[in-house]
Amino acid sequence: MTDHTHDAGRRSWVSSANGHADFPLQNLPVGVFSPHGAAPRGGVAIGDRILDLPAVLEAGLLKGDAAEAAAGPTLNAFMALGAAARATVRARLFELLSDGAPAPVRGLEARLLHRAADCTMHLPAAIGDYTDFYAGIQHATNVGRLLRPDNPLMPNYKYVPVGYHGRASSVRPSGVPVRRPNGQRKPANETVPSHGPCRNLDYELELGVWIGPGNELGEPIPIGQAHTHVAGFCLLNDWSARDIQGWEYQPLGPFLAKSFHSSVSPWVVTPEALLPFRSAQPARPEGDPAPLPHLLSEHDQQHGALDLELEVLLTTPTMRARGMDAHRLSIGNARHLYWTVAQMVAHHASGGCNLQPGDLFGSGTISAPEETGWGSLLEISMGGRRPVELASGETRRFLEDGDEVILRARGVRAGFAPIGFGECRGMILPAA
Amino acid sequence: MTDHTHDAGRRSWVSSANGHADFPLQNLPVGVFSPHGAAPRGGVAIGDRILDLPAVLEAGLLKGDAAEAAAGPTLNAFMALGAAARATVRARLFELLSDGAPAPVRGLEARLLHRAADCTMHLPAAIGDYTDFYAGIQHATNVGRLLRPDNPLMPNYKYVPVGYHGRASSVRPSGVPVRRPNGQRKPANETVPSHGPCRNLDYELELGVWIGPGNELGEPIPIGQAHTHVAGFCLLNDWSARDIQGWEYQPLGPFLAKSFHSSVSPWVVTPEALLPFRSAQPARPEGDPAPLPHLLSEHDQQHGALDLELEVLLTTPTMRARGMDAHRLSIGNARHLYWTVAQMVAHHASGGCNLQPGDLFGSGTISAPEETGWGSLLEISMGGRRPVELASGETRRFLEDGDEVILRARGVRAGFAPIGFGECRGMILPAA
Repeated sequence: MTDHTHDAGRRSWVSSANGHADFPLQNLPVGVFSPHGAAPRGGVAIGDRILDLPAVLEAGLLKGDAAEAAAGPTLNAFMALGAAARATVRARLFELLSDGAPAPVRGLEARLLHRAADCTMHLPAAIGDYTDFYAGIQHATNVGRLLRPDNPLMPNYKYVPVGYHGRASSVRPSGVPVRRPNGQRKPANETVPSHGPCRNLDYELELGVWIGPGNELGEPIPIGQAHTHVAGFCLLNDWSARDIQGWEYQPLGPFLAKSFHSSVSPWVVTPEALLPFRSAQPARPEGDPAPLPHLLSEHDQQHGALDLELEVLLTTPTMRARGMDAHRLSIGNARHLYWTVAQMVAHHASGGCNLQPGDLFGSGTISAPEETGWGSLLEISMGGRRPVELASGETRRFLEDGDEVILRARGVRAGFAPIGFGECRGMILPAA
Repeated sequence: MTDHTHDAGRRSWVSSANGHADFPLQNLPVGVFSPHGAAPRGGVAIGDRILDLPAVLEAGLLKGDAAEAAAGPTLNAFMALGAAARATVRARLFELLSDGAPAPVRGLEARLLHRAADCTMHLPAAIGDYTDFYAGIQHATNVGRLLRPDNPLMPNYKYVPVGYHGRASSVRPSGVPVRRPNGQRKPANETVPSHGPCRNLDYELELGVWIGPGNELGEPIPIGQAHTHVAGFCLLNDWSARDIQGWEYQPLGPFLAKSFHSSVSPWVVTPEALLPFRSAQPARPEGDPAPLPHLLSEHDQQHGALDLELEVLLTTPTMRARGMDAHRLSIGNARHLYWTVAQMVAHHASGGCNLQPGDLFGSGTISAPEETGWGSLLEISMGGRRPVELASGETRRFLEDGDEVILRARGVRAGFAPIGFGECRGMILPAA
């Protein structure tokens, strides 16, 4: 249920927040940052500023265990707390940062706020385990069609929220450059594999999910409670080495083709901030099976989808040298996921696997039904056979060194202030 | 190169160590334990006792950063140190626990030693990431044959040390009971899947590898240095829900079928203790490709294999009620791995993925060429079609509730004291 913290009419005394594309007063995402090389600490994005939570605590403006957990240097303890604690901190932050805040608060501006442009963002949590799902049905269909034109989806797809374990150690915040991996690949026209730089480097547009309260080993999470185990959301770029993947992935799944680097946007957009952008899970097409009972909750079906506009932008060295705007590769929406986040959580824990605060989920690549919203170059270029033409006159089958990919997400709904996730960006460096 | 700490003639004043099947003076594995419910701390197994490292430090008998790191409460910092630091601690421990130790040390016995039977063992490290390989070629062949009789091995098998990311959060030390998972499964004779207790629960006999010093993201580990990144070894039981796996694993690999629980033996057997049991990697059969250059080192080919006898034992409730000995399901050897541990390390890092101290690798199920050494029930019972007859007159296709599986490993070589890993055991509890 939305409350006064979603009131689109409320404005902040941090003037850049008013009308800010990502971080108006109604968003208040938490993250971990360093001002000017200082130690990492918890903060809140507000306009083009970051609110320094340890400074807010020190000034006596925030109190309590939840606020202290949000002050960092990682947010695992904050994520562990759940919705009630988050809502309390959110309400107090809203009060402190809104136009109605007492004058003394505004007098502390220099102590409490940093220019975001001067700060370094870190991962918001020490990631215990990272799991990547495959819930984008259009993506699964597009990719499956490249391999099996007549039968793109596996028989399990509409029963199981398919997923696999990813590599936690190589997740990095937005902005950290991505080194092109070396690896084994064997193109169809060669008889033996060779080892060298990836030739088919790709991005994947995904929603990231930060897990909040966990479960004990052996104790499943019922679907009706699954949403209470989510601490927040981010963007995730699941960089993919398609040629390495094609050679390595049988029979145990993707491995080095994915684990060389994954990028996340550094701000944790809370379930509370996203309340206005919840929507009903789209009805399953005629003929699709209903979810099995352990994955089915009426409330989740009514409110479990997220109406978030998702955009992928690309710049090349040539485009940047010419001062050109980024080229939009796609625009889609997170509503197109076949499985809700709650279904992913309930499925993951259904066999007893224990989730922990600070675990990260990826949704799987999100592609819209329309071609203009496909979430990877593999799909857009049809496996490299149909190069993408960029505004600069260049073409791309896959990513080249120096290319930079930028992911964005934005919630827009009539009557509410639009909010965004901030960027998830990464530039490709040449192979080592 | 072996040294005086491998001298089979040296004896310990801890009398149970002399001739101990697992933990003679020449082994000295490190682990984390709690005496009688006290706080976790580092220790060393010696006979049927555990040497309390914080107590040894407090008594002034050990000094230095490496010894302090080994004192716990996790061994990640100790694992990060590498071979020289481990060897220094090993030499000093050998001196303190050998017959030649000064009389004052022996006078402190009550302070320094605990009866292992009175202690609780913990995981030796906070596991960052867990990766499971598939290097047991006989296992890969046996399993592949069940699916593809004419073509059991994938074309990549002899080029790529195939592996996948596993779940770190659900790894538990030996002795923690294993709850049978619920999950989705669709037997061939049913048209739609159902959700319920796993019907084909299995064990997998694997060698575990604890990673020591890590690498930076983007910086591969050359094969010639890969062995320096290994901190030690353990046994690993990669419990597997075969029916869940069969339904879920396409196209992204095993997920919930494996992540409900994995068991490790709690003692870290160091590379130094295992020096006498190194052996040459068996020559690849005629016609197999040579490893690609980034996976090939002469030293590794000469010394990279481990000559360790591996045994799997089973007890059932009936057998225990009748006081019967455990039934031996298999006896094999770790020499049969197609890839060395150094090749796994070099491969894992070859695309730039960063390893971290305390990461865990599994070797993949180790099956001997002979049927008597196959490392899972799936293989022994030929997919459940040929039930195993136990000494009790019972039969098993797969594991039943109350069954307990025990893994053991032992190095035996003429002229050296045999050493063992201690047990990796787990009993099956009924599904939730």
